[in-house]
Amino acid sequence: MLTANYVGDHRIDIREQDPQPVGAGQVQIEVAYTGICGTDLHILHGSMDARVSMPAIVGHEMSGVVAAVGEGVTGWSPGDHVTVMPLDWDGTCPACLAGNQHICQNLNFIGIDSPGALQRLWNVDAGVVLRLPEGLRLDHAALVEPTAVAVHDVRRGEVSAGDHVVVIGGGPIGVLIATVARHSGAEVVVVEVDAGRRTAVAELGFEVLDPTATDQTAWVNRWTGDAGADVVFEVSGAAAAVLGATDLAKVRGTVVVVAIHPQPRPVNLQRVFWRELRLLGARVYERTDFERAIELLDDGVIPADALITSTRPITETAAAFADLESGRAMKVLIDLTATGDAT
Amino acid sequence: MLTANYVGDHRIDIREQDPQPVGAGQVQIEVAYTGICGTDLHILHGSMDARVSMPAIVGHEMSGVVAAVGEGVTGWSPGDHVTVMPLDWDGTCPACLAGNQHICQNLNFIGIDSPGALQRLWNVDAGVVLRLPEGLRLDHAALVEPTAVAVHDVRRGEVSAGDHVVVIGGGPIGVLIATVARHSGAEVVVVEVDAGRRTAVAELGFEVLDPTATDQTAWVNRWTGDAGADVVFEVSGAAAAVLGATDLAKVRGTVVVVAIHPQPRPVNLQRVFWRELRLLGARVYERTDFERAIELLDDGVIPADALITSTRPITETAAAFADLESGRAMKVLIDLTATGDAT
Ligand SMILES: [Zn+2]
Ligand SMILES: [Zn+2]
Repeated sequence: MLTANYVGDHRIDIREQDPQPVGAGQVQIEVAYTGICGTDLHILHGSMDARVSMPAIVGHEMSGVVAAVGEGVTGWSPGDHVTVMPLDWDGTCPACLAGNQHICQNLNFIGIDSPGALQRLWNVDAGVVLRLPEGLRLDHAALVEPTAVAVHDVRRGEVSAGDHVVVIGGGPIGVLIATVARHSGAEVVVVEVDAGRRTAVAELGFEVLDPTATDQTAWVNRWTGDAGADVVFEVSGAAAAVLGATDLAKVRGTVVVVAIHPQPRPVNLQRVFWRELRLLGARVYERTDFERAIELLDDGVIPADALITSTRPITETAAAFADLESGRAMKVLIDLTATGDAT
Repeated sequence: MLTANYVGDHRIDIREQDPQPVGAGQVQIEVAYTGICGTDLHILHGSMDARVSMPAIVGHEMSGVVAAVGEGVTGWSPGDHVTVMPLDWDGTCPACLAGNQHICQNLNFIGIDSPGALQRLWNVDAGVVLRLPEGLRLDHAALVEPTAVAVHDVRRGEVSAGDHVVVIGGGPIGVLIATVARHSGAEVVVVEVDAGRRTAVAELGFEVLDPTATDQTAWVNRWTGDAGADVVFEVSGAAAAVLGATDLAKVRGTVVVVAIHPQPRPVNLQRVFWRELRLLGARVYERTDFERAIELLDDGVIPADALITSTRPITETAAAFADLESGRAMKVLIDLTATGDAT
């Protein structure tokens, strides 16, 4: 079978490898679609070389069909449509013992810390496999993982019906957060600096602001009757966005930090203090978020077709990364069924 | 009567003024003791010139005895021992309408935005007056307001029995937070850079760390079985403390921002994200915090005698500010009964 491997030095190698036999306790999945995301780009850029073992088969947003089940595995049969929640926790650290397994202090993130889904036949522990409804298209189902991120973020921010929500950053995660928040009954505005992205977000029916052309604080104050937003999601990763986010939140409002900020960022702590704001980190998802994400995709709430900008065979994985790199793509999928490289 | 007035240019003037007659709806208080705090120092340094109307009678930590009651006021009689919760909200802004009157968007903080307690006969609206137990010494009762800050901070941080709590900054508010947290059943460590303050804090029975001599993160990890602290209070106002605070908190732990940070501070948002931390602003107090503070002082939980470093007559107000400025004092009180300047 073909596998896509990060080999360092900004390079992806497509290699022919023999599939591994399915082990005890494992499920072998015939991968259908694997999405590429910003984290994969970070890997390609070498920022995560300390975590990956090269050659590294990456990919953690996926859908597929059960091909075989290992010894001792019950509840799964060949042909079942499935996805994987790519978190493997130790169960013994203080975070796990306190019930926060998803942010285990020794988390193995499958597809980063161990081999991922850019291979046709993928063996994973049965415990990380989730069932997909038969009626859900497998390309759409490759969006379950990023949708689960958005579900988790919105749940962590405790967004309620009627809330005024600001999403800073109109990339795929921003759009998914905006979609989930709107579906929860919130009024949503998306702040995005890129004109092309603003157009894409507006086409999904969202109010969109260009922060370089509009005084976003004044706009939000008018929008909320001088109260400020209930919840602000910082999804852009930009330092200026962090500094501005606290000006948008109401008294006792919430700012959810979704983006990765590799450097410490200046935060207006005077405003945090003055308005008794709450700044929350939100990372990955819990199982309930994954299950909810599957439902939202199955119900057609998530605009999957609009989000999937391009779909390429595994042989074009490097080009798929370049699509994403360009900033013009939302979601880019690798179609593992497209190579004729079957079981 | 004598009044202490901030007149700009780092100067306090002691002036002779005629007392104002008590107005309708007001209570006239014969002030006994008024504490001077960091906020008053900020006023003296000119940092709040935009808010104060000079000459400004400052002071908002006080105790006293009712001297007279204005028309329409019920429930108060001359001789009642009282203190004042110095918050005057508009009741109509979005924050007030949402129930957060203590952080009203148009708050009048009595003693900053309007005349304070450095005068022998002080007229205030009856609604801001709280009763003191007869058995509580009036000098101790001047600590009700800062104690209420600490009660509010600990409540906001949701400190529970058995929690591991770190208090960064061993000044008066830090010590009060540590005391209230310990009384809630938490284990507490105080981090303080100043050797004199470390000695004072240790004498109150707290574990104290010198962050310049001890690796505080390693210490907290050992202390908590590699989990991290449940709640960290940032009371120091130092940029380095903010940057380090996020390293001390457990997965899903809380950092409460108590100190004033006039400049945006670098915050390790990667850590906030990675551990799903919660950063909370905490400002002033609600009525329930004030009532609890009175109880804690009446019950002898607060080490009032140890905290009151010096007590001076109003004629020595400038020297009292200098005591506080030196960093060697914890609480400095002005004794309004000491001048022979009676009603
Ligand atoms: Zn764990
Ligand atoms: Zn108000």
